[in-house]
Amino acid sequence: MEIVEKISEVREITAEMRRKGLKIALVPTMGYLHQGHLALVKQAKQEGTFVVMSIFVNPIQFGPNEDFSRYPRDLEHDAQLAREAGVDLIFHPAVEEMYPQKNRTTVQVSELGNALCGLSRPGHFNGVTTVVSKLFHIVQPDRAYFGQKDYQQYLIVRQMVRDLNFPIEVIPVPIVREADGLALSSRNVFLTPEQRQEAVVLSQSLIEAETLIRQGERSVARIEDKIREKITTQSSGIIDYVEVRSAENLEKSATINEPVLIALAVKFGTTRLIDNYVVEV
Amino acid sequence: MEIVEKISEVREITAEMRRKGLKIALVPTMGYLHQGHLALVKQAKQEGTFVVMSIFVNPIQFGPNEDFSRYPRDLEHDAQLAREAGVDLIFHPAVEEMYPQKNRTTVQVSELGNALCGLSRPGHFNGVTTVVSKLFHIVQPDRAYFGQKDYQQYLIVRQMVRDLNFPIEVIPVPIVREADGLALSSRNVFLTPEQRQEAVVLSQSLIEAETLIRQGERSVARIEDKIREKITTQSSGIIDYVEVRSAENLEKSATINEPVLIALAVKFGTTRLIDNYVVEV
Repeated sequence: MEIVEKISEVREITAEMRRKGLKIALVPTMGYLHQGHLALVKQAKQEGTFVVMSIFVNPIQFGPNEDFSRYPRDLEHDAQLAREAGVDLIFHPAVEEMYPQKNRTTVQVSELGNALCGLSRPGHFNGVTTVVSKLFHIVQPDRAYFGQKDYQQYLIVRQMVRDLNFPIEVIPVPIVREADGLALSSRNVFLTPEQRQEAVVLSQSLIEAETLIRQGERSVARIEDKIREKITTQSSGIIDYVEVRSAENLEKSATINEPVLIALAVKFGTTRLIDNYVVEV
Repeated sequence: MEIVEKISEVREITAEMRRKGLKIALVPTMGYLHQGHLALVKQAKQEGTFVVMSIFVNPIQFGPNEDFSRYPRDLEHDAQLAREAGVDLIFHPAVEEMYPQKNRTTVQVSELGNALCGLSRPGHFNGVTTVVSKLFHIVQPDRAYFGQKDYQQYLIVRQMVRDLNFPIEVIPVPIVREADGLALSSRNVFLTPEQRQEAVVLSQSLIEAETLIRQGERSVARIEDKIREKITTQSSGIIDYVEVRSAENLEKSATINEPVLIALAVKFGTTRLIDNYVVEV
């Protein structure tokens, strides 16, 4: 496994692999890898491709008061995990390599970004779609793998790929969880032991909501209320949002009559966690 | 020369050519071809590539009160000219092929679009960069050719390609003019015989401005005034803008001390014409 920092190096290596007839897979990450990232790699490997993992904490997707500078980084450990998982090439550019001059070009996806995390993180998804476009043009993958923990991000990237005709297949990979249900996240490292224990309420409330829907509950308001109540009474978490929306286009209705995304964002101290379940009906 | 209407067909044919080791060139047009377009083809042919010409009147780059529906179209004649010029493949999609669902994704280039044609045609350049991104992803050319008549468009596309790391070389091709100097444009067909005669004032005023600069004039205001005065006194044209700006980034200064773009847009009746000269100093 090679680690390169220059765009020109990635282009050379991937062009060579393409000449050899290999398909290219891209696993875009911000590093500080956990099993959730490695599940993306595992799926890419199963499909027999040359796997490029990008590790880049992208400044333009962080708001001015967000955690860009304190976002956790550990390239050495990442490299070890990536190698073990079968990554073929790590692309780890400096900020100056990705943004050598003032970036004037933005890729924007309307509507899908106007809810959930898009409301609490204005500009965030424009930063994501812009850097993903750049990575797509640098790596030119046949397939790109995105974790469903960032479900809204997955939908937005899928929409961008469709609208702009990127010749790339976007593949969603299910959330990986701790034994007690907490969704893996690089940000979990910021939780105090008490917050870590309390945070289990997120996945538990989602499971309860899923059970309610399976039992026939169809009121979006009642399900959202149940989740809010559980989180508020059983933890110190401050709710950013709890929402039930169409899993296909994030539209909101009062009644559930199609597959839905149950999504939430909750702050424990300064650490904002997200989680979600997709429920078919 | 083949004419195809489906994205999947373009992808198949260009993939085949790529396998054969050919470079792919894209000449994006809105059709109603003239020698200006054919100069783009000629240059692409000289560079020994497989030349794809797109012919697509892109609705999203026209404002609500602009001439989308009356923009001239003549595929049969275009096909004949393209064939003679050596085009290998025409891509002529229907609007539904390019925008099968509501388009939610926009590519925006800031700053460069906030002047000249960007002021009189709000949204125009976002429509251009979005459709050009789509065409780039559909055709995946190695090189794309743009006429310098739309100089601002060329700069914006070049900026987009740099910022988003498109693996594509953007090549500008000089303006082609009638014998009397009028820049070729598909819209010239709308001019009455009188307007057609008057319109020669555009290139003439640009030549005079160039001469002034060559003679040592460095005041942007004086040059702009000279051009405005000539157009106003010698024609019925209504000036949209006359501007001298940096040829590199469209920035405005009072004094000329780097290569400049002298650009203008003038309406003759309902027909809006543009023209420009780049002057090195």
